[in-house]
Amino acid sequence: MNALLFNAVHAPLEYTTVPDLKPEKGVVVVDLHAAALNHRDLYITQGQYAGIQAPCILGSDGAGEYQGKKVIINPSLDWGTNPNAQQKQFRVLGMPDNGTFATQIIIAKKQLHPMPEHLNWEQAAALPLAGLTAYRTLFTRCKLRKGEKVLISGIGGGVALMALQFAVAAGATVFVTSGTGEKIKQAEKLGAKGGVNYKEGGWDKDLKAMAGGFDVIIDSAAGDGFGQLAGLCNPGGRVGIYGGTLGKINNLSPQIIFWKQISILGSTMGTASNFKSMLQFVERHQIVPIVDRTFPLKLGNDALKHMEKGQQFGKIVLNCV
Amino acid sequence: MNALLFNAVHAPLEYTTVPDLKPEKGVVVVDLHAAALNHRDLYITQGQYAGIQAPCILGSDGAGEYQGKKVIINPSLDWGTNPNAQQKQFRVLGMPDNGTFATQIIIAKKQLHPMPEHLNWEQAAALPLAGLTAYRTLFTRCKLRKGEKVLISGIGGGVALMALQFAVAAGATVFVTSGTGEKIKQAEKLGAKGGVNYKEGGWDKDLKAMAGGFDVIIDSAAGDGFGQLAGLCNPGGRVGIYGGTLGKINNLSPQIIFWKQISILGSTMGTASNFKSMLQFVERHQIVPIVDRTFPLKLGNDALKHMEKGQQFGKIVLNCV
Repeated sequence: MNALLFNAVHAPLEYTTVPDLKPEKGVVVVDLHAAALNHRDLYITQGQYAGIQAPCILGSDGAGEYQGKKVIINPSLDWGTNPNAQQKQFRVLGMPDNGTFATQIIIAKKQLHPMPEHLNWEQAAALPLAGLTAYRTLFTRCKLRKGEKVLISGIGGGVALMALQFAVAAGATVFVTSGTGEKIKQAEKLGAKGGVNYKEGGWDKDLKAMAGGFDVIIDSAAGDGFGQLAGLCNPGGRVGIYGGTLGKINNLSPQIIFWKQISILGSTMGTASNFKSMLQFVERHQIVPIVDRTFPLKLGNDALKHMEKGQQFGKIVLNCV
Repeated sequence: MNALLFNAVHAPLEYTTVPDLKPEKGVVVVDLHAAALNHRDLYITQGQYAGIQAPCILGSDGAGEYQGKKVIINPSLDWGTNPNAQQKQFRVLGMPDNGTFATQIIIAKKQLHPMPEHLNWEQAAALPLAGLTAYRTLFTRCKLRKGEKVLISGIGGGVALMALQFAVAAGATVFVTSGTGEKIKQAEKLGAKGGVNYKEGGWDKDLKAMAGGFDVIIDSAAGDGFGQLAGLCNPGGRVGIYGGTLGKINNLSPQIIFWKQISILGSTMGTASNFKSMLQFVERHQIVPIVDRTFPLKLGNDALKHMEKGQQFGKIVLNCV
């Protein structure tokens, strides 16, 4: 089989041939058709991730064939029995376990689910990690209800876009923020009602004038601007946090939190049950994940460079066959 | 009737005689036996509160007699129909509505509840605001379950102490923080398993060594130390915030929030249903609120000065008769 091998941080992935995989007790071999990148993969190659091990095949997202059937892989491994949080043994697929940047993967059969029939290989590979994260954050944690007003920050990333598509499908009125006006326009084509550029001063006041206030805010930036997001909440509002690219939260008013009875809710990946519910939701609403660009597997380093530039709108996919 | 009149900020309350109250349509007159102080009253006299109006009778907590029956007053006015947050018209009893620092009060009959039989007047007056706030934060917002580990910061204040007594009664293992070792010892007598002095460096590491981690943390300080509290959460942990005496939250790691799937939950006062549930809980567990000291109504200014010193352990009560 062919694979992109992660040998060391700050080094390109090595496109190479390794021995074909054989099924063992409790695990099966899937012939991969497509994989998708996540920021996690980029952070690992940059040495910006905990517990890095090499050599290893990266990649959390994959779709392929198992015994003649089209399957999609749940990248959430060994969550455990507590629906509220993952256990210590929990892992995201791809480092330390060999991941999907290859033509084959060996994985526990219970991680496989029928691929939604309305998706092609690339769209299906774009779904698992982003879809699971967005689903748990929006519905399990923030308990989004029809008719509510939602703000999604940093539109263009995989999870943010899935959250936009899910929230629109659920009957919410959705606004977005982005660093570029172009991405706001693209989000509007996907059903967003409007948006603001967070690089422009007074973006929070503009949002307030545009939307009033928000029942649910989905954020992965955190940092110094987080307090402004909290200030945009309606009474009883929920803020879902699934990342923190801008670092520590500062200048957050406790008065806003307690007087408005706000909930700030952390979320990571999801349970097996969350994954199944997400797939059902995607099928029921015929949601098609947005693919920004597809690269051949052997050009995986180009795909990572494309992600590093941060210009993408949607998932970056690898064609594995 | 006699009353303590709030005439202006930074001025002592005026102990004076005003005309007796007469019941009107929709409201009744209660003959007060005892009232209790809250920090809210102190903040108003210091000009540290929004929407200050004078003249007015302060005081949110009261117990008294109505038609020969002992009653306790729910100080949460016009919450509205949304259980998740209060509506705009919501008010805490005592400014702008005349409050309990008097021998009589005029109030909507629905705010009255039978006084728990196991309490005397002073204990009953100590219960409403602190009990309601602690109950909603612990149970409605943080969903405390039997057997969980709880941390309560700043023990000695009214809400913190009620939260300690409620959590112990609910079968939780409770730890506390305080600025004095003496208050920690007193908390242990009330059922706390242990505690640390937050003025000593490494208090969070000491707590970690002592307790492991916490499922629920109840805080009203916020400020720069809040990130350390969040770091003490177990996976799936909940942090209830009902105040913010140390000001804005800084240096809070989003990675801890999302990876541990933590919930930070603001809480203020409570619904009429929360108040009833709180009273039932207090009766079922025969909980007796801690009274630090009782002053005669006419010495209300001394009572406020006593609160300002911050040495109290429990509620400061006014004897109204």
